[in-house]
Amino acid sequence: MFKVKIFTLYPEFFPGPFDKGIYGKALEKKIWELKAVNIRNYAEDKHKTVDDKPYGGGSGMVMRADVIANSLDNNLEPNQKIYYLSPRGKLLDQEIVKNISKEKYLNILCGHFEGIDQRVLDKRNIEEISIGDYVISGGENASYIILDSVLRLIPGVLGNEQSTFDESFENGLLEYPQYTKPQIWQKNKVPEVLLSGDHAKIKHWRLTQSEAITRDRRPDLWHKRNKKN
Amino acid sequence: MFKVKIFTLYPEFFPGPFDKGIYGKALEKKIWELKAVNIRNYAEDKHKTVDDKPYGGGSGMVMRADVIANSLDNNLEPNQKIYYLSPRGKLLDQEIVKNISKEKYLNILCGHFEGIDQRVLDKRNIEEISIGDYVISGGENASYIILDSVLRLIPGVLGNEQSTFDESFENGLLEYPQYTKPQIWQKNKVPEVLLSGDHAKIKHWRLTQSEAITRDRRPDLWHKRNKKN
Repeated sequence: MFKVKIFTLYPEFFPGPFDKGIYGKALEKKIWELKAVNIRNYAEDKHKTVDDKPYGGGSGMVMRADVIANSLDNNLEPNQKIYYLSPRGKLLDQEIVKNISKEKYLNILCGHFEGIDQRVLDKRNIEEISIGDYVISGGENASYIILDSVLRLIPGVLGNEQSTFDESFENGLLEYPQYTKPQIWQKNKVPEVLLSGDHAKIKHWRLTQSEAITRDRRPDLWHKRNKKN
Repeated sequence: MFKVKIFTLYPEFFPGPFDKGIYGKALEKKIWELKAVNIRNYAEDKHKTVDDKPYGGGSGMVMRADVIANSLDNNLEPNQKIYYLSPRGKLLDQEIVKNISKEKYLNILCGHFEGIDQRVLDKRNIEEISIGDYVISGGENASYIILDSVLRLIPGVLGNEQSTFDESFENGLLEYPQYTKPQIWQKNKVPEVLLSGDHAKIKHWRLTQSEAITRDRRPDLWHKRNKKN
């Protein structure tokens, strides 16, 4: 069983969307499990304080190292890896997702406010991961993204009707355009080549399309790919 | 009021986490509203078919142009912009988020399976947006990310206790480390400079830290920033 633990100030966000659909079914089948740990339960004063003002000044509040360390130490084996979701982290990509999906567990720490005291990040086995270059209110929605990306690769989670082989990013290119019925929609036709039955020609057309879209929309990926080849 | 419409095969995922916390309060105060449109309701055959096999072969199913266009045309003014979440899209960043937050509405189309018939993407006012270079099961969790990033910038949504001024990405650098009480935690001290009260020195230290972290973790951002300056 793939064991997921989420450390959060908002345990009511979990399982959230993950008790529905394919992931909900997999949860019932015990292919994976989810435990949301309420960080606030590990605050030691009577007000259950989890944060305080930053040393050196500045707006916002910073989450306390001692409270977070307490929540981690009481729920994890020593030295288990923890991913902390933060815009300062390394960018999540499909390679990282694949590596996580090969593990037996996934621990996610959700931050809030202005961040987390740096000392707990330094003194525990924590890796900072960012899902992208934008700011969101906290780590909870970002944790949904990591969970979604990782769970679909866990054996047994997706049914036979869905494939885990992804065109996207597999060959360093974005996907070619897709078409389905009806063959003519509001006078717009499906490209002739796709109706030709000529598999070599179709393959070539799709590759050319993928290359053009990648070059146009993601020059960074295009560049990276050309360096490799 | 900021009007959000989500076009999805899984309307049960909404409002999801957005009826809780700060966004839930703002929803109650009618600062924003959310409507989830079930794409399946716009299928015209008796089986409510929304997808079919891709022309030209390949695994997976493609969502039909006619059904999606029906769902959009019946719920939007002509030519309203729609964001389609897809790994083929332009990468979401804080600049795009800010621009969306200045609009009066946000329409999001959530895909599933192998994607959406290209013709509806071409013939409606649809922009493809990607939240990052990884694969998730569908657009629903990604729509949470766009919603979260945009809503926090809508005036009146965040209380006074939270600032919408984000250090992250504002100056093209990642944030410096933060520290709060206790001053000594498990023998680890807060950096001296932050206790000095010398604001110029603190500012300099923080900038130096931000630069070092950015250079180390995100050479791409570092590069981009140096080009600009």
